[in-house]
Amino acid sequence: MTVASASETITPTKPPADSQPRISQFMKSIQDEICQGLEDLDGTGKFREDAWEREEGGGGRSRVMRDGRIFEQGGVNFSEVWGKELPPSILKQRPEAEGHGFYATGTSMVLHPLNPYIPTVHLNYRYFEAGPVWWFGGGIDLTPYYGFGEDAAHFHRTLKEVCDRHHPDYYPTFKSWCDEYFYLKHRQETRGIGGIFFDYQDGTGELYRGPQRDREAAAYSQKVGAPPQKTWEELFAFVRDCAGGFLPAYVPIAEKRQKMGWGDRERDFQLYRRGRYVEFNLVYDRGTIFGLQTNGRTESILMSLPPMVRWEYCYSPEPETPEDNLYKTFLKPQEWANWTEE
Amino acid sequence: MTVASASETITPTKPPADSQPRISQFMKSIQDEICQGLEDLDGTGKFREDAWEREEGGGGRSRVMRDGRIFEQGGVNFSEVWGKELPPSILKQRPEAEGHGFYATGTSMVLHPLNPYIPTVHLNYRYFEAGPVWWFGGGIDLTPYYGFGEDAAHFHRTLKEVCDRHHPDYYPTFKSWCDEYFYLKHRQETRGIGGIFFDYQDGTGELYRGPQRDREAAAYSQKVGAPPQKTWEELFAFVRDCAGGFLPAYVPIAEKRQKMGWGDRERDFQLYRRGRYVEFNLVYDRGTIFGLQTNGRTESILMSLPPMVRWEYCYSPEPETPEDNLYKTFLKPQEWANWTEE
Repeated sequence: MTVASASETITPTKPPADSQPRISQFMKSIQDEICQGLEDLDGTGKFREDAWEREEGGGGRSRVMRDGRIFEQGGVNFSEVWGKELPPSILKQRPEAEGHGFYATGTSMVLHPLNPYIPTVHLNYRYFEAGPVWWFGGGIDLTPYYGFGEDAAHFHRTLKEVCDRHHPDYYPTFKSWCDEYFYLKHRQETRGIGGIFFDYQDGTGELYRGPQRDREAAAYSQKVGAPPQKTWEELFAFVRDCAGGFLPAYVPIAEKRQKMGWGDRERDFQLYRRGRYVEFNLVYDRGTIFGLQTNGRTESILMSLPPMVRWEYCYSPEPETPEDNLYKTFLKPQEWANWTEE
Repeated sequence: MTVASASETITPTKPPADSQPRISQFMKSIQDEICQGLEDLDGTGKFREDAWEREEGGGGRSRVMRDGRIFEQGGVNFSEVWGKELPPSILKQRPEAEGHGFYATGTSMVLHPLNPYIPTVHLNYRYFEAGPVWWFGGGIDLTPYYGFGEDAAHFHRTLKEVCDRHHPDYYPTFKSWCDEYFYLKHRQETRGIGGIFFDYQDGTGELYRGPQRDREAAAYSQKVGAPPQKTWEELFAFVRDCAGGFLPAYVPIAEKRQKMGWGDRERDFQLYRRGRYVEFNLVYDRGTIFGLQTNGRTESILMSLPPMVRWEYCYSPEPETPEDNLYKTFLKPQEWANWTEE
């Protein structure tokens, strides 16, 4: 037996024969658990479900809450789709999948609270199979309008605890990937305070160690190193644990900030900053592009867009205000897990 | 002498030695003329100008009006940029430009009126030089929230008159191209009632007649035929005339609709439909993508986004309402120049 080196290919473990129903059941159970937790938190808002089918194969169930006590709008979407071939944006990253049918399932969520002191939050976990390849992807990230170090620290520490149970490299790797992925290049801003993000996890680390067939992963691994080798079952357990971390990471923040009063000033700033969310989702987001390219259900894909948004030409915050502090402190990568009150 | 056939290359005329200063002066003069006309129309709103420079070469002057009598926001932008190489999105269409420096100048405008009965309108004219190639592009299109056949007819007839002075094929060709370009595939809707749009006009018609090196133009010319051969001077004269057609095409519509009263219902619908404008500009628009890819001035590029927007999950208009009529009659290609009152 030899230790895997950069020049040696590591074959991924095969998914179990029942991988698709197991993952699909799990993705639905995340949706159920999250919706229940959010209804409990909101107190008055309820999710309305639309089941839908996709002509080319598959379908989903979209759930939306509107005009709740806490959530101006929240969407939690489950989908499971299959077809003849993955779209070009993904084949570019996984050329082995070319010419093969694919299966993809996932749950995604975006919450837009009414109170500007409560952050917007996004979660997505997804799983793909296509010919010889399979992988997990996803993550969770937080977008405050008004920044609080203690909230950022709580959010990141909760995610770090989950990651650390599976591998000590996971949190630093996926935290850094998140900062990079949720970045608005044309604004030179992160979308918010980040969280964790990963893609193409097939347990081999091959994309990160091997020849540079995946440019993004290769460039990435130069910075943070390759993810550890894992079996399909180990990765699935990791993703289950990540999903379970959402409510404990977010609910305490929402409960605390809900008590803060707000007025036109905070609302105006929130609506303005929501514009960045729209810009990110329509210009950069991989899930949105995948959905639109695969003829997904438009209303479910764009459910992530905020209910009300504004743009203002050449806005910049007054110096030394809480709005200015968001830009200066919270819209750039920080080691929030190490945060201490000054 | 032989007549140009599909297998023969037609060499474009060379631009005159002073093409760049002439076009740039013209693009600024469009901006001046349009801003003056819009201030006259608005009556109270004034444009504020920001001059800016681009690190890699060039710059521009952005003009924005806010909270006028008619215009909630209006932006008219002039820019002139140059650099080492065109971005990939354009090189794909014009491979001859690869490895050459480029020069690009243009004027673009988007107006968002306050009164939902006044349509949003967009105009853009642009000119490129890169190594052996040069071309003109641009157009103008109208996006009503409430549709009126007579307005659509006036708008299209004004454009048709301008086009007909230069070539009888121009209006039908560029009208049809506009319907195709300003189309939201994921919504299966046109952006509005269209207008005219053209790109890669270098006077040869080569892109449209020749071997299929330009897939878009080739596919396109199968439907509407190739544009006629023109000299640089003839094309410049055509673009000047198009730009001059904007005020007569739009101002009478704005003046007439400004008199109509509106309330929450119309405003809500306008804000909702503005979401489509955002979706188009961020997902599909060539100018926006060019700007963001060439490290343009973000605030000037995204000046086209509306000041206030909303999204609503699964909205659809009540049957037999004016809102429903917009979808049924105005968000699909129609021969508006032939419209007659029923």
